[in-house]
Amino acid sequence: MSEPSLLRQLLDRQEIMAVMAAYTRCADMNQPEQQAEVFIEDCRVKYHPTDWIVGRSALLEALRTALARYAKTSHHLGNIEIDFEGPDSATAQSAVIAWHRRNDGSEWTLYGRYVDRWTRTEQGWRLAERELRAAGAVGRDDSQLPPLGRASGALT
Amino acid sequence: MSEPSLLRQLLDRQEIMAVMAAYTRCADMNQPEQQAEVFIEDCRVKYHPTDWIVGRSALLEALRTALARYAKTSHHLGNIEIDFEGPDSATAQSAVIAWHRRNDGSEWTLYGRYVDRWTRTEQGWRLAERELRAAGAVGRDDSQLPPLGRASGALT
Amino acid sequence: MSEPSLLRQLLDRQEIMAVMAAYTRCADMNQPEQQAEVFIEDCRVKYHPTDWIVGRSALLEALRTALARYAKTSHHLGNIEIDFEGPDSATAQSAVIAWHRRNDGSEWTLYGRYVDRWTRTEQGWRLAERELRAAGAVGRDDSQLPPLGRASGALT
Repeated sequence: MSEPSLLRQLLDRQEIMAVMAAYTRCADMNQPEQQAEVFIEDCRVKYHPTDWIVGRSALLEALRTALARYAKTSHHLGNIEIDFEGPDSATAQSAVIAWHRRNDGSEWTLYGRYVDRWTRTEQGWRLAERELRAAGAVGRDDSQLPPLGRASGALT
Repeated sequence: MSEPSLLRQLLDRQEIMAVMAAYTRCADMNQPEQQAEVFIEDCRVKYHPTDWIVGRSALLEALRTALARYAKTSHHLGNIEIDFEGPDSATAQSAVIAWHRRNDGSEWTLYGRYVDRWTRTEQGWRLAERELRAAGAVGRDDSQLPPLGRASGALT
Repeated sequence: MSEPSLLRQLLDRQEIMAVMAAYTRCADMNQPEQQAEVFIEDCRVKYHPTDWIVGRSALLEALRTALARYAKTSHHLGNIEIDFEGPDSATAQSAVIAWHRRNDGSEWTLYGRYVDRWTRTEQGWRLAERELRAAGAVGRDDSQLPPLGRASGALT
């Protein structure tokens, strides 16, 4: 790639990482409207082992309902990997720790991974697809969460 | 912005993130003198719900006292967002998980957010202002910590 | 440095951070073969207070054995600091939170730091040396882990 193209890709990475951070900030501030804005209109999102949420208005309702269960949350991203498929689309993965305090005061913590598809829109990079995969959870039965798909731990 | 300006801003982001990392490293190594060096002389810092620490020498005393309470700490930053206000100043936010083991062996973990003002000095980018806001804490009464300001969790 | 050199260094940072992320992803997916591939053939790795693992084939055996003890793990990096020693070598530090669920269902969490040497190879940047230093651990006796080397917490 030429130098201007390499610079452009670094700027695109920077913008995608900033939008990833906004997703978590809006969750923790209980701002589901702003959180939904980081997705495209016809997004697909999976927080459940089998069911996909389709479209931003359905997502907004799901985010509102989910955030209302909690008195406090704190999401923390790391290990961000972004691979460009072309100038206007990318796949990405990130690791997430998400601490939750329910309205009854009980707590649980998610250790997981987001698997994403990103697309460039006129408003900037937005999430076209996000799939949560859980390594595990503490304080909650994590067999109800979509699994990471880790290989068996047994030695062969 | 021109390409040289865009490159410069990526380098500025990189330098700010490196200084953010140094702050946490110095805390966890119990090096309050080095930790205070990432702030400007007339900094303002808020770790308490209402009181600001003003000036680097007051900050150094506060850091010394705070770190001396702990046998071990571990600070972890993520979700870094930096917005430039001009070539020499920026606002920033980051999410922090901070695990603490007190000298008596008891432990607590902070889930929070730093809200910063950064300024470019002759020595490089330094913190002019840092405000801690706590999403919550485990192992400690978090009503004593400065709140994140999350919107009410109740459905309207 | 010239602008092309500055751009090159940003790209090198980006590549090293991507390989750091791959290390954690492969660990959490229980893919020790792929995890070992991020190291050079004659790497040196220290996960123990005194013993170094020398060479990639010994490392692969150690990773296989270690990962087989766990049903689930989740590694999270932050606070990445990279310092270039020349165009083809760098030192780096990062902070890690690593949650582990053993095959018996018990759990422990590491709060630590990786201290690295990176080298550019024909296949890209690879780990020449990685040393784990533990701030502490929850759910496990952390006196058996290599220490961070924190200064004494006592006020002088």
